[in-house]
Amino acid sequence: MEDQKSTSHEKKLGQNGIVQPLLTDLYQITMAYAYWKSCKCDDIAVFDLYFRKNPFQGEFTIFAGLEECIKFLDKFSYSQSDLHYLKQILPSIEEEFFNFLGSLTAKDITIYAIEEGSVVFPRIPLIRVEGPLIVAQLLETTFLNLVNYASLMATNAARYRMAAGNLTLLEFGLRRAQGPDGGLSASKYAYIGGFDATSNVLAGKLFNIPVKGTHGHAYITAFTNLSDLKTVELQHKDESESKDLLELAKRWRTELAPIFKVLVAEISDGELVAFISFAIAFPHQFIALVDTYDVIKSGLPNFCAVALALNDLGYQACGVRIDSGDLAYLSIVSRKYFTEISDKYDLPWFKDLMIMASNDINEETILSLNDQDHKIDCFGIGTHLVTCQKQPALGCVYKLVELNSKARIKLSQDVSKVTIPGKKEVYRLYGESGHSLVDLLQKGDESPPEPGKKVLCRHPFEESKRAFVTPSKVEKLYKVYWKNGEICKPIRNMQEIRERVKRSMKTLRSDIKRNLNPTPYKVSVSDKLYSFLHDLWLQNAPIGELS
Amino acid sequence: MEDQKSTSHEKKLGQNGIVQPLLTDLYQITMAYAYWKSCKCDDIAVFDLYFRKNPFQGEFTIFAGLEECIKFLDKFSYSQSDLHYLKQILPSIEEEFFNFLGSLTAKDITIYAIEEGSVVFPRIPLIRVEGPLIVAQLLETTFLNLVNYASLMATNAARYRMAAGNLTLLEFGLRRAQGPDGGLSASKYAYIGGFDATSNVLAGKLFNIPVKGTHGHAYITAFTNLSDLKTVELQHKDESESKDLLELAKRWRTELAPIFKVLVAEISDGELVAFISFAIAFPHQFIALVDTYDVIKSGLPNFCAVALALNDLGYQACGVRIDSGDLAYLSIVSRKYFTEISDKYDLPWFKDLMIMASNDINEETILSLNDQDHKIDCFGIGTHLVTCQKQPALGCVYKLVELNSKARIKLSQDVSKVTIPGKKEVYRLYGESGHSLVDLLQKGDESPPEPGKKVLCRHPFEESKRAFVTPSKVEKLYKVYWKNGEICKPIRNMQEIRERVKRSMKTLRSDIKRNLNPTPYKVSVSDKLYSFLHDLWLQNAPIGELS
Repeated sequence: MEDQKSTSHEKKLGQNGIVQPLLTDLYQITMAYAYWKSCKCDDIAVFDLYFRKNPFQGEFTIFAGLEECIKFLDKFSYSQSDLHYLKQILPSIEEEFFNFLGSLTAKDITIYAIEEGSVVFPRIPLIRVEGPLIVAQLLETTFLNLVNYASLMATNAARYRMAAGNLTLLEFGLRRAQGPDGGLSASKYAYIGGFDATSNVLAGKLFNIPVKGTHGHAYITAFTNLSDLKTVELQHKDESESKDLLELAKRWRTELAPIFKVLVAEISDGELVAFISFAIAFPHQFIALVDTYDVIKSGLPNFCAVALALNDLGYQACGVRIDSGDLAYLSIVSRKYFTEISDKYDLPWFKDLMIMASNDINEETILSLNDQDHKIDCFGIGTHLVTCQKQPALGCVYKLVELNSKARIKLSQDVSKVTIPGKKEVYRLYGESGHSLVDLLQKGDESPPEPGKKVLCRHPFEESKRAFVTPSKVEKLYKVYWKNGEICKPIRNMQEIRERVKRSMKTLRSDIKRNLNPTPYKVSVSDKLYSFLHDLWLQNAPIGELS
Repeated sequence: MEDQKSTSHEKKLGQNGIVQPLLTDLYQITMAYAYWKSCKCDDIAVFDLYFRKNPFQGEFTIFAGLEECIKFLDKFSYSQSDLHYLKQILPSIEEEFFNFLGSLTAKDITIYAIEEGSVVFPRIPLIRVEGPLIVAQLLETTFLNLVNYASLMATNAARYRMAAGNLTLLEFGLRRAQGPDGGLSASKYAYIGGFDATSNVLAGKLFNIPVKGTHGHAYITAFTNLSDLKTVELQHKDESESKDLLELAKRWRTELAPIFKVLVAEISDGELVAFISFAIAFPHQFIALVDTYDVIKSGLPNFCAVALALNDLGYQACGVRIDSGDLAYLSIVSRKYFTEISDKYDLPWFKDLMIMASNDINEETILSLNDQDHKIDCFGIGTHLVTCQKQPALGCVYKLVELNSKARIKLSQDVSKVTIPGKKEVYRLYGESGHSLVDLLQKGDESPPEPGKKVLCRHPFEESKRAFVTPSKVEKLYKVYWKNGEICKPIRNMQEIRERVKRSMKTLRSDIKRNLNPTPYKVSVSDKLYSFLHDLWLQNAPIGELS
């Protein structure tokens, strides 16, 4: 959480009230019971949480959701009401198990994890959970739920940020998000991934994210003619005199009409009046939605007229929003008119008026607009961002890799689904340029790679894919986040995680980050882990008999 | 809500604590201020909430989320904390407006709506909101958020239900859902749309939905050999004697191996032990996940051995779950073995053992499995269902159609985006077969169509598309749900809404419901509304001048 204030807000509102032990699949409870029944209460397990494939046809992922997992552990406990409900739906289970369940906490769990906001890759466990088998098993679904969407969303946002360069990105997705909390999570992780602000007021309040907004088409259509305006006076910014903003704007409109090659009669009066009323309400932050009737024949002339009228009273307008049509073309035309007016009336700031675009924009739209030399300063992005339309789920899994100090492997006819067994450490090796070269998984008991020393990095499954790497820098990726019932590292606020995303993205070579045919980042295992994995695989794979 | 109990549960948990007036876009607040500033507090508006295109390349949609909208209205009010936050982020706005905002409630709003759970179509307003412009405007984002995902999810579930016929459908999506509440909403609206149960325990507790689950691969891999089993005794179902279930199963396994054309040594011992332990925990509900090692060479022989051992002790096993591989083939093979064993040992129930399939299944997978004569009884569906992967957002919009008794139209170069102006009534006309023929929008002041009387139904935008319809039955679709600050119709529980979905789906002709190239359902306007719409269009469209 951002700070004390929003933490208490959040608690009061119960936003995370639903992140509780029952937010899980029933089979976790039935498995817990069967383990308990099999006297496996003292078994100690290691689970890895990881994904197998980067989303969005990309080659990187941003890890997010860790903070929520740690907060979940901190209050992990079944309430009497939970136990009562479980007894109802599992009537064959004996009372004693529910007493056991009621006594469980996360105090014997240890969480090793990569820092939230880091760039991460397939197969590298993001979180390693160690502790009693039953408790560790019971965390699976909730952890996956908390990490999957958060990481997907943060990754999506980071991709939009790359496409948009330094332009302003606003998240406008609440109305299309997957439910109320889907909307809040989207706002939160869009901000972490690199967006500048959200339209979601509650997200602003809860997470201290900047909130932005203008007006919608309904506002424009709520005015039809000049008589709809009951207030027309606006006081000068620095002086005491007030003037009739409508009269000023009408005069400007008449003057500007020839520039826009339009007859004054063609320009919507309702729209002008709507703009005037909005300008009176927000003279310092006047932004106009210009596509309700016709951007070039009505929206732009009306906006410029009001902006120049505001200028007469000492205010600088902010800009326009375009929500339909050919965004590249309309932005170029808008900029041309702004420049023409800027030159004609010697108003240098006029040519830099903000142009915001916001119609069903996705990553590819931005890249295509870039190719068309658009003149947009700011994108408002909704549906595609928050629903991650291009790929609406990240497939994180949670796999048992060790039990009672013995490594476990899960085989599959699909090689990509074979697990890498045992407790592992992960190192990120950097080259001289500062870019990361490879992530290296090692067995827990191996000594870490050292800067300047050659290390053999092997593909986990393809025998012939090997490379020596001499790192300039070695980063140990795991830190302990939870141990002995305590949070071990201060929970980072969103701003810090957002900065981590920025820094982490910079360490990735651009060919790995690009939209089209990116280069896969190398994820390797040490020679020792390679042998260990393949020996265990052979031991566990049954030998068939051809017949 | 299901009943008093779950309502109080929900309130306590704060699940809907985030559905509050600040769960909105900032521009609703800035528009409200600009309206207030323009003295439009007494303006009376009518807004229509509708969508323009059915999801999933289909020709129908299930309307859901209404109940949540009504509950939202019932507590609509800005808290002191909300106002405090808004003052911070909108410092230029005068105190008086915040006092006004703090005084707002939904008491002057009237809600007309189609019944939740109904089949609905593009352009037909699902909800008509009447009341003070400012309040009605402030409801927009929250209403859209509550209706969009709910309707999308219920529609998706109803489509899976159609594809699966009478088979059992379980929702398994929590781990891939879009955050914690995304998971809860998915479980709720999947059930409404026709699923039989969920794996999500909290959804079961909050909404009284049946909850189902088995075990995962981790459970199987947590056992490696026969010595892992500390308890092997199981008491006979009806008698006091206990027997060693492991010994019984091992004997059965030796007997069954030739049937499966497999050596006993090829069959995983760890898997057998895992099944035994699960069977001891759930002897009445034994379901086994059979694909951890090899379905045919290990999973099925082990399952059948344990099922027959259980049978020796008076218990009937439930069945198997297959989570990978060729589901049609594996289900057919499984059924073949079950039948062979059923015949050989004269156990009639054995051939009907349940076969559950659960690997990344979507609507098309089910249709394709149908073509392959699969023998599956039950589908567990996760990612594709809850994220609505095929189309992750429904595009409901909320448009101003009348202000101070004057109709409003929003024009667009894209005809599909032109709004149908004014306050309208909707009638569904049924034919003699009981199927619905057409939805007819009329002006509010027209007299309703009558059974047996011919009525002209026109396409709203294509002049030549007209048809006379003589309905056998006429259904008025709107009812008043909220008026004078009161809920006007008892809130339906989920079971009732679910039944409504079933009944409503039955009134649709099958060619409209089919997956491939479905026939569009007709949505028409009366002749009077057609003329009204087009007259207003002409009045509002500026006449250009060619040059």
